[in-house]
Amino acid sequence: MKEEFVNYIHNLQDRITTALEEIDGAAKFHEDPWEREEGGGGRTRVIENGAVIEKGGVNISMVHGSLAPAMQDYFGVGDVDFFACGLSLVIHPKNPYAPTVHANWRYFEMYEKDGTLVDSWFGGGQDLTPYYLFKEDAEHFHQVCKNACDAHDPDFYMKFKAKCDAYFYNAHRGEGRGLGGLFFDHCKAEKGRTMEDWYKFVTEVGDSFLDAYLPILKKRKDIAYGEKESTWQQIRRGRYVEFNLVHDKGTLFGLKTNGRIESILMSLPPIVQWKYDHKPDPGSEEEKLLEVLKNPKNWV
Amino acid sequence: MKEEFVNYIHNLQDRITTALEEIDGAAKFHEDPWEREEGGGGRTRVIENGAVIEKGGVNISMVHGSLAPAMQDYFGVGDVDFFACGLSLVIHPKNPYAPTVHANWRYFEMYEKDGTLVDSWFGGGQDLTPYYLFKEDAEHFHQVCKNACDAHDPDFYMKFKAKCDAYFYNAHRGEGRGLGGLFFDHCKAEKGRTMEDWYKFVTEVGDSFLDAYLPILKKRKDIAYGEKESTWQQIRRGRYVEFNLVHDKGTLFGLKTNGRIESILMSLPPIVQWKYDHKPDPGSEEEKLLEVLKNPKNWV
Repeated sequence: MKEEFVNYIHNLQDRITTALEEIDGAAKFHEDPWEREEGGGGRTRVIENGAVIEKGGVNISMVHGSLAPAMQDYFGVGDVDFFACGLSLVIHPKNPYAPTVHANWRYFEMYEKDGTLVDSWFGGGQDLTPYYLFKEDAEHFHQVCKNACDAHDPDFYMKFKAKCDAYFYNAHRGEGRGLGGLFFDHCKAEKGRTMEDWYKFVTEVGDSFLDAYLPILKKRKDIAYGEKESTWQQIRRGRYVEFNLVHDKGTLFGLKTNGRIESILMSLPPIVQWKYDHKPDPGSEEEKLLEVLKNPKNWV
Repeated sequence: MKEEFVNYIHNLQDRITTALEEIDGAAKFHEDPWEREEGGGGRTRVIENGAVIEKGGVNISMVHGSLAPAMQDYFGVGDVDFFACGLSLVIHPKNPYAPTVHANWRYFEMYEKDGTLVDSWFGGGQDLTPYYLFKEDAEHFHQVCKNACDAHDPDFYMKFKAKCDAYFYNAHRGEGRGLGGLFFDHCKAEKGRTMEDWYKFVTEVGDSFLDAYLPILKKRKDIAYGEKESTWQQIRRGRYVEFNLVHDKGTLFGLKTNGRIESILMSLPPIVQWKYDHKPDPGSEEEKLLEVLKNPKNWV
């Protein structure tokens, strides 16, 4: 399973970076292979200042070793070994009408010190963070998510959509980070479902990513915009930073357990603004976005 | 003591905002009085887009009520009442050669539910975050801090300077937020020192703030600069955001205990950039700053 999923994310990283380079047309991903002193490493691919993509990263990592004390506390386990691998991506397009997207697919194994496998699970998801609301984009993204889920369980979509809304939530602002999508974790062999079943589900979601995002990016990347729209984009990107640095467990664990900082923080947007007590004009397009962030909707 | 310190911070807020408006010459502070549902309130004063100050806040608050569960855990106490007041300020000048400054002076009381005072203490400090290193500015700022300390105890300066370096530290980057200054907390009536003694010390530090910062701001506010310097300033401001959102206890408690979000996050810089794996050129002025952030120095 380990080997199968590691091969899968290598292949998926290639497919995604190739497709994004094609749509960008100008910039190429820069690859940074890195090694982790305690075991394992990764392949970070970052794109910056493209024609379409202002900043983005599509990173894979395969790490193993002793579980750090902070992680032992988090999982409620003792001194165990672990293996973790995954693909994480964040794409911040230049055009304020094109949404930011985030996705992650991961696999985790935990062992006793003698090498006995104690536990293993999959996790992941994909979610959309627009700056302007296009109902049809939200519907398309969620429909692709739903199709990937429905092939495996009729309850998955609503369950993982709800988890996504709950997780990517800026509690201190009372608003969602974006329009959600899917979020699932601790997908284990239980209730008649095997790890092979979960593998098929997680890889089906991974395979759906480009179908979910690229049509939206293509449709929005060339819409004319001005300083007003860019400023709003940069203010909203401040909220993205607030979520990732204050609430996101993955980011915080990475920062506190000696992860590769530049691979973790590649998720942060290129240019961000914080204005004091900023509020969009009543009835504006900017306010329409805020309304759905404060009141998550069902899109399909 | 409560009343005395509340009067002091009201007066200090007036003195500081008046002096800063004078040096700015263009923008004025905008005042937002606010009330806290659970008891108390504050007077937020924010300045934006000035000739000298790009963004800044000089805020006072006086809040009381039941101590929030998260704070009970933090202090290791049960269900008690509290009173807290303080002045917090952050000034982000426009010119990249002029440093950002932060300061805070606060007083805290804790009571049993029958109103018996259980504990009380002062805390605070002031610290400098430049984008370019001017040795004479660091020396001036620290000398003023040292003078304020020396009048009270010959050990205070080195002790509180060390606490400041340790506190304002971006552990995940292995670098200080800035060049430090003073940081003290839990200053209580003990070891022969009365609360009156601490009051005199804390207010002496508060009184020293304008002497510590204004001469530096005056000297640097009109130095010619270009896009290169602004970009570096914005990248470094990203580190400021990282510290405040990942490590700063005050910010995190505020966000997690239903504080007034806009008053707390006024500390965030106006414009920020994150570039992947940015490193200054070897031997550059930018690199010289990084070196002292990685290896804190004694300036006086």
